[in-house]
Amino acid sequence: MSYKRSDNRKADQLREIKITRNYLHDPEGSVLIEMGNTKVICTASIDHKVPKFIRESGAKHGWLTAEYDMLPRSANKRILRDRYQGKIKGRSQEIQRLIGRSLRSVFDLTQIPDKQIILDCDVIQADGGTRTAAINGSFIALYDACSFMRERKWLKEFPINNFIGAISAGVVQDNVLLDLAYDEDLAAQVDMNIVMDENGKYIEVQGTSEKTPFTSEQLQKMLKYAEKGIKEIIEYQKEIILKGLTL
Amino acid sequence: MSYKRSDNRKADQLREIKITRNYLHDPEGSVLIEMGNTKVICTASIDHKVPKFIRESGAKHGWLTAEYDMLPRSANKRILRDRYQGKIKGRSQEIQRLIGRSLRSVFDLTQIPDKQIILDCDVIQADGGTRTAAINGSFIALYDACSFMRERKWLKEFPINNFIGAISAGVVQDNVLLDLAYDEDLAAQVDMNIVMDENGKYIEVQGTSEKTPFTSEQLQKMLKYAEKGIKEIIEYQKEIILKGLTL
Amino acid sequence: MSYKRSDNRKADQLREIKITRNYLHDPEGSVLIEMGNTKVICTASIDHKVPKFIRESGAKHGWLTAEYDMLPRSANKRILRDRYQGKIKGRSQEIQRLIGRSLRSVFDLTQIPDKQIILDCDVIQADGGTRTAAINGSFIALYDACSFMRERKWLKEFPINNFIGAISAGVVQDNVLLDLAYDEDLAAQVDMNIVMDENGKYIEVQGTSEKTPFTSEQLQKMLKYAEKGIKEIIEYQKEIILKGLTL
Amino acid sequence: MSYKRSDNRKADQLREIKITRNYLHDPEGSVLIEMGNTKVICTASIDHKVPKFIRESGAKHGWLTAEYDMLPRSANKRILRDRYQGKIKGRSQEIQRLIGRSLRSVFDLTQIPDKQIILDCDVIQADGGTRTAAINGSFIALYDACSFMRERKWLKEFPINNFIGAISAGVVQDNVLLDLAYDEDLAAQVDMNIVMDENGKYIEVQGTSEKTPFTSEQLQKMLKYAEKGIKEIIEYQKEIILKGLTL
Amino acid sequence: MSYKRSDNRKADQLREIKITRNYLHDPEGSVLIEMGNTKVICTASIDHKVPKFIRESGAKHGWLTAEYDMLPRSANKRILRDRYQGKIKGRSQEIQRLIGRSLRSVFDLTQIPDKQIILDCDVIQADGGTRTAAINGSFIALYDACSFMRERKWLKEFPINNFIGAISAGVVQDNVLLDLAYDEDLAAQVDMNIVMDENGKYIEVQGTSEKTPFTSEQLQKMLKYAEKGIKEIIEYQKEIILKGLTL
Amino acid sequence: MSYKRSDNRKADQLREIKITRNYLHDPEGSVLIEMGNTKVICTASIDHKVPKFIRESGAKHGWLTAEYDMLPRSANKRILRDRYQGKIKGRSQEIQRLIGRSLRSVFDLTQIPDKQIILDCDVIQADGGTRTAAINGSFIALYDACSFMRERKWLKEFPINNFIGAISAGVVQDNVLLDLAYDEDLAAQVDMNIVMDENGKYIEVQGTSEKTPFTSEQLQKMLKYAEKGIKEIIEYQKEIILKGLTL
Repeated sequence: MSYKRSDNRKADQLREIKITRNYLHDPEGSVLIEMGNTKVICTASIDHKVPKFIRESGAKHGWLTAEYDMLPRSANKRILRDRYQGKIKGRSQEIQRLIGRSLRSVFDLTQIPDKQIILDCDVIQADGGTRTAAINGSFIALYDACSFMRERKWLKEFPINNFIGAISAGVVQDNVLLDLAYDEDLAAQVDMNIVMDENGKYIEVQGTSEKTPFTSEQLQKMLKYAEKGIKEIIEYQKEIILKGLTL
Repeated sequence: MSYKRSDNRKADQLREIKITRNYLHDPEGSVLIEMGNTKVICTASIDHKVPKFIRESGAKHGWLTAEYDMLPRSANKRILRDRYQGKIKGRSQEIQRLIGRSLRSVFDLTQIPDKQIILDCDVIQADGGTRTAAINGSFIALYDACSFMRERKWLKEFPINNFIGAISAGVVQDNVLLDLAYDEDLAAQVDMNIVMDENGKYIEVQGTSEKTPFTSEQLQKMLKYAEKGIKEIIEYQKEIILKGLTL
Repeated sequence: MSYKRSDNRKADQLREIKITRNYLHDPEGSVLIEMGNTKVICTASIDHKVPKFIRESGAKHGWLTAEYDMLPRSANKRILRDRYQGKIKGRSQEIQRLIGRSLRSVFDLTQIPDKQIILDCDVIQADGGTRTAAINGSFIALYDACSFMRERKWLKEFPINNFIGAISAGVVQDNVLLDLAYDEDLAAQVDMNIVMDENGKYIEVQGTSEKTPFTSEQLQKMLKYAEKGIKEIIEYQKEIILKGLTL
Repeated sequence: MSYKRSDNRKADQLREIKITRNYLHDPEGSVLIEMGNTKVICTASIDHKVPKFIRESGAKHGWLTAEYDMLPRSANKRILRDRYQGKIKGRSQEIQRLIGRSLRSVFDLTQIPDKQIILDCDVIQADGGTRTAAINGSFIALYDACSFMRERKWLKEFPINNFIGAISAGVVQDNVLLDLAYDEDLAAQVDMNIVMDENGKYIEVQGTSEKTPFTSEQLQKMLKYAEKGIKEIIEYQKEIILKGLTL
Repeated sequence: MSYKRSDNRKADQLREIKITRNYLHDPEGSVLIEMGNTKVICTASIDHKVPKFIRESGAKHGWLTAEYDMLPRSANKRILRDRYQGKIKGRSQEIQRLIGRSLRSVFDLTQIPDKQIILDCDVIQADGGTRTAAINGSFIALYDACSFMRERKWLKEFPINNFIGAISAGVVQDNVLLDLAYDEDLAAQVDMNIVMDENGKYIEVQGTSEKTPFTSEQLQKMLKYAEKGIKEIIEYQKEIILKGLTL
Repeated sequence: MSYKRSDNRKADQLREIKITRNYLHDPEGSVLIEMGNTKVICTASIDHKVPKFIRESGAKHGWLTAEYDMLPRSANKRILRDRYQGKIKGRSQEIQRLIGRSLRSVFDLTQIPDKQIILDCDVIQADGGTRTAAINGSFIALYDACSFMRERKWLKEFPINNFIGAISAGVVQDNVLLDLAYDEDLAAQVDMNIVMDENGKYIEVQGTSEKTPFTSEQLQKMLKYAEKGIKEIIEYQKEIILKGLTL
């Protein structure tokens, strides 16, 4: 029997996605991404020097990295700021490593040999799926920062060589669902995050089961739903970028 | 000769102020305050226990405190997150102490004997005057959190006993100006922040001159402009609150 | 054309695995696990109080957590100790969260309502696959700590309800390989870690591609190889445990 | 009705001030300043390199900064050392920023293009007014460090271009008082710190009211008292410096 | 041939020692100790609760601990404050552990079952021998804090059961010397610190040779000199204490 | 009456000592040292740059330093990892400073003008005497790292100019004992650590009495026992090294 979602979505249906470009004055790229009630500000900043570990390695390319944080009251229960504990939450570290890896997988670092791009993802309101929203929003912010560099003739070639999209899937009461909202995430036996490129290839597959191990069938179904969802997200991203070009 | 401001304001004219109430789902009080291009999210969170230093002191009242931070790209040059340095920037500490002191000065802590209210002020976009915007925005968020408590019968009496407003003034090229934008702040010989209550009494007077000491006349004129500006801010706050009541 | 592994293993062949039980005097459970040249000391410690976040949540169960670290010269290039930077490496955090989650998935926390078990995984020598070796070794250390508790009548029922095994797989020069050694890991386009239980259900699936996105076929083949490898590991674990019982 | 001070001072009377020059062997400038029972050791150290943020900014001038701390038992209740908390108390940060700003306002940094002067203010005994004592003492220590540099021909021109003095004022039981001792500070409705130069111009005006907002009349009277007090302090500083010259 | 000391002392001669009691207002015991040009403020503070590790151990006694620090310009080269590095210098840790151990060896902790005494040793001026000066000064501060407790009837018996004294010895150009000043310490092949009680028994013997190993004869001579020096120090301490009693 | 040791050793008898050379793949020198049940992994790593404080001092020599840590369950009671407290335990700091000083005393730093050798001592199992075991084991690891450098012609002369050995002695129930095991250490009135070279000269003498001061006779007997024990250790080290040469 099928599961009734609180917002009446079908099992494989995305929440409404909305990206506001140029959300802030100063950054080279900045968006507000909303996926349902989840809201994340993603900015892309160009730093005119590469980090020390790259410099010292002798590599001839630049770098791209991400930072992720949540405003204290983006969540229902107030979150203590990391600065008071002198360390970054383990969860934030995992997420920002994921965002950085995902975007580097479609980015040609040799195009920015003396630069670093920093993607800042700050969650304003959290309702599930903040990490995948951050990847989707960062992609557009990164695109805009690349356009900024292209206009200034800082690039030989545009460094982004593929679209990427990210979405969550999960199993709730034995039903496989796409794009879990916070209440669903809380109830999920399994939580999976998938990042894919435009050609349907995988960049990240992360499935985690703390409560109940999951079957091969459930895994396959989550992968299928995710593929469908990511296709829709990449279509929306293309639309957004085209609109920007016509302005 | 009078100074030409980049946005054509008169010397004693405020920037446009706009407060969006209930900006976020979860907090007991939350606003987005905009003063010109400066944008700050202010939330008020109710914590059902008092901090340790109050408990241990044997005091019979609760507490009210504030935290202040800036998103990395709220400013033109990317700001390093505090968590990477394991300490809070000195400037942030000063500002959040100022916000907390200011709001405590009109708040009856004995009304919340077993609670703490935390005001989080996160700057989304910085164009001068972020600390005074944070005080003005926090006042409304605090008001809404108090209404939240009143509705639940957690209060004997409403704990806010006066309105407060805050504004900056400064001296640029020997001209006294009200409500400095970022470019004016950068050029200012003197930078002053004033917090007053509805009766025109002072809560904070902080004037700082790194470049050129200022005269008694300049001090008096800044005080006068600030009084005028704060009156207008308090009028706007009253309007905002009344609107809320009619809903 | 098939890939020639430096140690002549077949693509889906595990390295030799060896677990030395009761490796140390003091811990309630302790093993040295060797998978090829990778060597990890895993200990299980019983702490007679639950962590604060459980106590405060009102939950009626205990806790199980893991810590992971590497000796400075377990690797070819000396690793700076975390204590000099005042923070845990992001990679260590991810790994210890993975170990903890994996073992909790087959552990009944309600059997130890007033206790916490801490699994310490310290890598003595690293040659690829340290995180999966840590999971496999911790399982036996945990088993022994549970026997320790059972002998003292601290348990109503034995809290481990399933076997688990963990292994890596990857893609090197377009060949899918099982149980990557360090040189293979370095050359891998994709790196995947899989944790499964005795019934062939998934506990964790983590596939990461920084260099080249991977196809659906590669994903399926890695899953298949991992299933085979984990079955063999679980067989070895059973053997090890039976031997202990006959002593 | 006028307020009876515990040491019988008049409302606008300073405590006795005493500065011992060359208090320590090693520093280029060092004083013990006593204002009543408040005792602060102030030293000026010459560092032959400018801080990184100046170097990187491309500026052609040196720097002057201050550090402030209290010995654990300078106060009635023992103060925990900052080093045990891995952070500087917010109050200390505010104070040392104030001391640095104040002294920079009368110091020509271009005279020391490749140097930094560090003013260390360590409170030995605290009885109110430690921050203003620190400013007054640092001024003499800085003067002596400048003489030290002048003797070695390291300066084109003497970099101090004005005297500065600092004092507190406050309102206790509705009486405006100058130079508050600790018991008065504790009872004060308002606490104000003022820094002025020899010409009667303001460098800092910081008035804070946590308990009761203050009136315009009170503000004006505190400013008047402070002006009188600072004049006396600057006279004493001149005397001290002249005595040094006659030795 | 015998070594000529810069201050003409004989090889086994102490520098002048001077202890100023009740040096500060607030602490229960406080002295300024001067041994030659070395100056240390030692205070003894009574804390009305025992530290956590004693409480949790179930022990029925109180505790006594020490902290040691140097003012930034107590030395010729300015010392960075620990608080900026978020850790205590290794040297300070060793010294404060030595001070605490030494004083605990003559102190009956069962006399203060619910208290902790904290000895703060802050070096104002360093000219060699700061750790032994700190022990000698702390002894008097501790004595005064015990008198403070005895007057208030907080003690059954006076908890100090023996005098202790501490002194350094060393080998400079193959000459054994007592009580090294800073220039001698710098030139020393061996540096030794000895703590003894009134009966000539050893509490601590710490001899360190980084440059040249030392012979058995040198060791024996250093022990002999130290015994003589400590006797003189204990005589002076007795004198000091008697003087206090006659007041 | 003489004391009966739990393992039937004579008062001046060492526990069995065993050193396994080349214990790990990667380090330039690595041993597992066992002294009774105490087990320490000691590695020597060659770093091709000198630390900053040497570089900045203008010195023409390299450096040698040590780090010491214990695995969490090397001891009976689990030890919290330093990384969670953001500081190194005071005890570890003292020990690693002792190890570094001891080995530098027989090492010619001018032979490695552009290098640093780091000795990592990680205790796997602790049963008393871990610091002296670490010195003895590090000596062999250091020897092997020097051979590694000699083979590559990085040295003009072999930089180790003497053997060193280290051992503990103590007083238990008024009996002087050599090489204390953990249970003896716990019961000891005095705990002493001695480091000597091959010629019977002292490098370190550290005797500490927290409970009962010790007599001159006890001190002399501990020194005598230690001399005997260290001779035996150095003989064993020579044997070990010779064996290596014949391989």
